[in-house]
Amino acid sequence: MTWQRVCIIGVGLLGGSIGMRLRRDKTAREVVGLGRDIAKLQSAVKHGAIDRGFDSFEQACAESDLVVACTPVQQIPESIREAARWASPQALFTDVGSTKSSIVTTLDGSTLGKRFIGSHPIAGSDKSGVEHATPDLFVARLVVLTPTDSTDAADLDAIDRFWKQLGASTKVMSAAEHDQAVAITSHLPHILASMMAMATPNQLIEMTGTGWSDTTRIAAGNPQLWRQILEENHAPVLRALQNFATISREWIAAIEAKDFERVEQLLIAGKEIRDTVGNRYSSS
Amino acid sequence: MTWQRVCIIGVGLLGGSIGMRLRRDKTAREVVGLGRDIAKLQSAVKHGAIDRGFDSFEQACAESDLVVACTPVQQIPESIREAARWASPQALFTDVGSTKSSIVTTLDGSTLGKRFIGSHPIAGSDKSGVEHATPDLFVARLVVLTPTDSTDAADLDAIDRFWKQLGASTKVMSAAEHDQAVAITSHLPHILASMMAMATPNQLIEMTGTGWSDTTRIAAGNPQLWRQILEENHAPVLRALQNFATISREWIAAIEAKDFERVEQLLIAGKEIRDTVGNRYSSS
Repeated sequence: MTWQRVCIIGVGLLGGSIGMRLRRDKTAREVVGLGRDIAKLQSAVKHGAIDRGFDSFEQACAESDLVVACTPVQQIPESIREAARWASPQALFTDVGSTKSSIVTTLDGSTLGKRFIGSHPIAGSDKSGVEHATPDLFVARLVVLTPTDSTDAADLDAIDRFWKQLGASTKVMSAAEHDQAVAITSHLPHILASMMAMATPNQLIEMTGTGWSDTTRIAAGNPQLWRQILEENHAPVLRALQNFATISREWIAAIEAKDFERVEQLLIAGKEIRDTVGNRYSSS
Repeated sequence: MTWQRVCIIGVGLLGGSIGMRLRRDKTAREVVGLGRDIAKLQSAVKHGAIDRGFDSFEQACAESDLVVACTPVQQIPESIREAARWASPQALFTDVGSTKSSIVTTLDGSTLGKRFIGSHPIAGSDKSGVEHATPDLFVARLVVLTPTDSTDAADLDAIDRFWKQLGASTKVMSAAEHDQAVAITSHLPHILASMMAMATPNQLIEMTGTGWSDTTRIAAGNPQLWRQILEENHAPVLRALQNFATISREWIAAIEAKDFERVEQLLIAGKEIRDTVGNRYSSS
């Protein structure tokens, strides 16, 4: 299927990568970008991420049959609401927000909510901006879709196909289930990376190697965006941190007791889980 | 300077990389390997890491003027002691062990101890084995040297030059200082990676992305080797874990209180430290 006009709100790493892929594969007749910063939109055009850029919802969303909100999570509901005022009456709406409950709950129940299907592509980078965008960003990556009871099956299918056109695979979950999962798989690693960096005194930085570097890499992410993510998902994140503290106490107890048999068991348990993933993803 | 015969005890990733570089640059007339497994020594010869391999200390160490112990940390003192029985009377001894106090203390005070200078190259990989060795493993990496009061300045100089010939830079520290530093920069990240993997239920593995993957990568390391490292360095490691637990409690308190200003401050603090390193190291 071909979209008539896809409107991408926020043309950065994710939005830009979506646009590049749609344009490359000609799965949209037109890809437009919406943003406040004209220079950034011009850069997005230059990078081949969008055909045209606008700074007004009216111009960008007019006649759009698909709107993808790629703004920071806390701006997504308002962006979608405003976009719906101008888009085609049958337009579908989705997003790339890395938390889902708050967004889906805010939009659900309205007539608009019916046409909004939350998406979370598990893809990204500690880099941001359209200059790092690539049409292959979503290839072989998982996109979680979080329809609600009011979602039409045909609309869910259309959004599912949209992500598959970008090379991704998809998985349907409830927004609450999704948020609990990513608190563990994404938000907890981010906090740990940040804590590990903070635990390192400046004068020891020169002694860090690849281990430290890998473990802390995502701590370089944008603090304002991550604050929003952690704020939106604070209850599952708190549980994940508390669960982690329990594991940490187990480790401390084993080392305090000089129980190195137990330490080895813990290391083996961690390795077994890590080995199931291997080098599926490489980064940096 | 050129070594007459360098004996590498344990020709894996580190030992093999040392041998390859010495052979490539002809900074040793001969590079021999010592190990129990003949097939592995043959593989090391095939990979160009050593000229010849032996399974006896007598044969491998005879006439050696430099012996480098690349075995697991807990075997290093005994390997050095045995090597000293056969090596040249003026031979120097060093190692690549990632903890230093226990090794240096065990060897210090003896006549042999005078000629042993502990080294810790901060270089490595979650991969092991001579098949991953490379002559460039130490290029631009830091090697910490831990001489004692009984070390001769000329011997320290020789070991210092040895590592610089391999492309590394060096830094002299006391063994105790070194061990406290690596508890934070290396051992703590390893434990965190392991704990993060263990905190991830199997059914959520498919939802992991590059962030989880980076943060947990080193958890794939050899549990038996890491058990030894943590055992040798248990007191500094315990302090590092306890300090980390304090930072973790700060995070939990901020999220419990929904104090997202504080969360953002913590994220900024972590990012500032991480940003000082950047992509200096890339891995996998």
